[in-house]
Amino acid sequence: MFWTKTLIPTLKEVPQEAESVSHQLLLRAGLARMLMAGAYSYLPLGLRVLENIQKIIIEEMNFCSGAQVLLPALQPLELWQRSGRDKDIGEVMFRFNDRRGRKLCLGPTHEEIITELIKNHVSSYKQLPLLLYQIQTKFRDEIRPRFGLIRACEFIMKDAYSFDQDEEGLEKNYRIMYEAYLRIFKRCGLDVLSIEADSGVMGGKVSHEFMVSAKDGEDAVLICPTCKSVMAFKEEADKVCVKCKAHLQKINAIEIGHIFKLGTKYSLALGANFLDAKGNLKPIIMGCYGIGVSRIISAAIEQNHDNDGIIWPKELSPYQVIITALDVTNKDIMEISLSLYEELGALGISVLLDDRDERAGVKFKDADLLGIPLQLIVGKGSLKDGSLELKNRITKEKLIKSRVEILKELAQQIHG
Amino acid sequence: MFWTKTLIPTLKEVPQEAESVSHQLLLRAGLARMLMAGAYSYLPLGLRVLENIQKIIIEEMNFCSGAQVLLPALQPLELWQRSGRDKDIGEVMFRFNDRRGRKLCLGPTHEEIITELIKNHVSSYKQLPLLLYQIQTKFRDEIRPRFGLIRACEFIMKDAYSFDQDEEGLEKNYRIMYEAYLRIFKRCGLDVLSIEADSGVMGGKVSHEFMVSAKDGEDAVLICPTCKSVMAFKEEADKVCVKCKAHLQKINAIEIGHIFKLGTKYSLALGANFLDAKGNLKPIIMGCYGIGVSRIISAAIEQNHDNDGIIWPKELSPYQVIITALDVTNKDIMEISLSLYEELGALGISVLLDDRDERAGVKFKDADLLGIPLQLIVGKGSLKDGSLELKNRITKEKLIKSRVEILKELAQQIHG
Repeated sequence: MFWTKTLIPTLKEVPQEAESVSHQLLLRAGLARMLMAGAYSYLPLGLRVLENIQKIIIEEMNFCSGAQVLLPALQPLELWQRSGRDKDIGEVMFRFNDRRGRKLCLGPTHEEIITELIKNHVSSYKQLPLLLYQIQTKFRDEIRPRFGLIRACEFIMKDAYSFDQDEEGLEKNYRIMYEAYLRIFKRCGLDVLSIEADSGVMGGKVSHEFMVSAKDGEDAVLICPTCKSVMAFKEEADKVCVKCKAHLQKINAIEIGHIFKLGTKYSLALGANFLDAKGNLKPIIMGCYGIGVSRIISAAIEQNHDNDGIIWPKELSPYQVIITALDVTNKDIMEISLSLYEELGALGISVLLDDRDERAGVKFKDADLLGIPLQLIVGKGSLKDGSLELKNRITKEKLIKSRVEILKELAQQIHG
Repeated sequence: MFWTKTLIPTLKEVPQEAESVSHQLLLRAGLARMLMAGAYSYLPLGLRVLENIQKIIIEEMNFCSGAQVLLPALQPLELWQRSGRDKDIGEVMFRFNDRRGRKLCLGPTHEEIITELIKNHVSSYKQLPLLLYQIQTKFRDEIRPRFGLIRACEFIMKDAYSFDQDEEGLEKNYRIMYEAYLRIFKRCGLDVLSIEADSGVMGGKVSHEFMVSAKDGEDAVLICPTCKSVMAFKEEADKVCVKCKAHLQKINAIEIGHIFKLGTKYSLALGANFLDAKGNLKPIIMGCYGIGVSRIISAAIEQNHDNDGIIWPKELSPYQVIITALDVTNKDIMEISLSLYEELGALGISVLLDDRDERAGVKFKDADLLGIPLQLIVGKGSLKDGSLELKNRITKEKLIKSRVEILKELAQQIHG
């Protein structure tokens, strides 16, 4: 993509509205813009990161034999009344009537909808186990939207649901998903902590939260510096680790995933039963598994940045390489830049070409701010002796070598 | 994918609620299910078709140098008041207050949002032209949702917006998009008609609709059987073709795309200006270009089916091949089926393996209903002499040959 053909409105100044580092860099690197408090427009770079995250999640869910679906955001309130959650969930759910007087809501989550779907199509143990998931937009009427994509009224979630005939099946699916989560977060460049947590309004007995420590995270947790155990922060809690007796430290964190053993809460409430091998009617045993997809953008920035800007983990970066053409009015520089752009593109490498008519200083600063791992710089030197400059955004290492050698090095850094 | 690991609830009977052929086959082939009137859950097969359509659209939009964004569904009503459209659009827009009293609506379209975004980030002719697009979920409070995905309250659209400094620029972008639309619809297996149409609530002077003729389409059009000219049906209109004087025939059609030369309607209302090369402040000239993405599923079924079920156009089919294992209790049949599944998968061919414990008749009927273009059948014959059967869903041609020859033929039909 050519910079001048897309929309990357970088900002030199830190926007006043942005409270956290990730929120500041989200805006400064031109990834997203606020439409109103709690609702964000993803600009081209932000959307590319979002899609990279989705790609990782889809690969890992499919690896677990998950089948992808897409459920509606618009839901009949009546289903929530049947599960009893219309009251539990309270004001956080948007509710309204349509012009025909139907009572509707915007789904903050989809347990009721998926249970109703399964109820109508699964009737025998032969159809179990089943794992369905979706990546879909959720809505929550947050009283105080904060931190950009972290606490928003409209956001993107991956929610998966497992259906089993017995507790052993649930246990197996739960463990498979737990491990898939660790792989997903690792590929997203996140250093993740998992905590046994309260199941809250979701119901069920066991749940685990996945947290990412962040200076400006909104959740407080207690961590043991010795054994790395983590637990939710409670004022009244003992501040000493049960395992190794070390003093617990309070850190802030962002919740990016939560998995639940739901059991039969929804299948009992909505009548989702199956016939087992002996012909007995039983409620389906369920689990549910959520990831805050849009939230991962912010969490990844929180954990991968320096004073100059974002440093994208390899698999999340909106482009693999940025070519910085230092003087676009110079025909020869542009010719070299374009030929590099095409050569890399033909190799299947995604490239952003900074073809703006801007000063070198502006371009260097923006390239660092954007955080694409590899910067290929084409300047006057390239004209003199055919050399190119390759800068690694992570190590800040710079190499000036012949075109052939630089492209070899670049391929190695991408694939190595 | 294994059939038993996913959710494909095929139906033998025609569902009573389904008024049109595409609606019937949508439900019978297990592509989608109604949650409530106007809101549908995409099941795994339907979502795969949807994603194939999106892939085609993204490729063709990127080919036109479009940059993809994702805008919120939740919008401040105030923006619609500024453009004056909150009145024009009337009750079809869902409106409600959040718990803090903000007046919100669910976007039925995004001209206001994108104009507001551009207004804040484009200020010079140097940043123009620009083409932004999104594939996003829209909401409309339809008084009478109908025909499954055709007239729904929640649906998926591709909406693109062009920004130019003059009429010539708009003219060029409009033509580029017109041609991209013809390519997109062709790749979706649709025989499309384009009509110069009324711009309605969108504003602007010129617009073109793209229609697909369908027995149960909800729009009435007049078509000239000689020169293929098409126009909107009006009771009072002359029923003779202006060009060739032939008698016009009334047919029904489904609208799947609509493009508009908006001009300065939104940029004037919301103050989206730019400085031209001479330093004069001017309103940005806009165009907008919509495609009913989810609607294409139904349109494609309307135009590609027979009495036995769907016949997917190559690029839309949820899988390229279905392997029908005729007796899953037979170890040898399953072994051959699995080795074929893996061999084809390794070649990058997408395969659905019907591993259900069902009678051959049920499997054959379901394979025809699903409409995957190529059926590979593994039965007793395969055990006897190592032969396989390949059925082409379109031509109904059946081939029984050795494994090597059948796989060669299959590859040829896929890539040829």
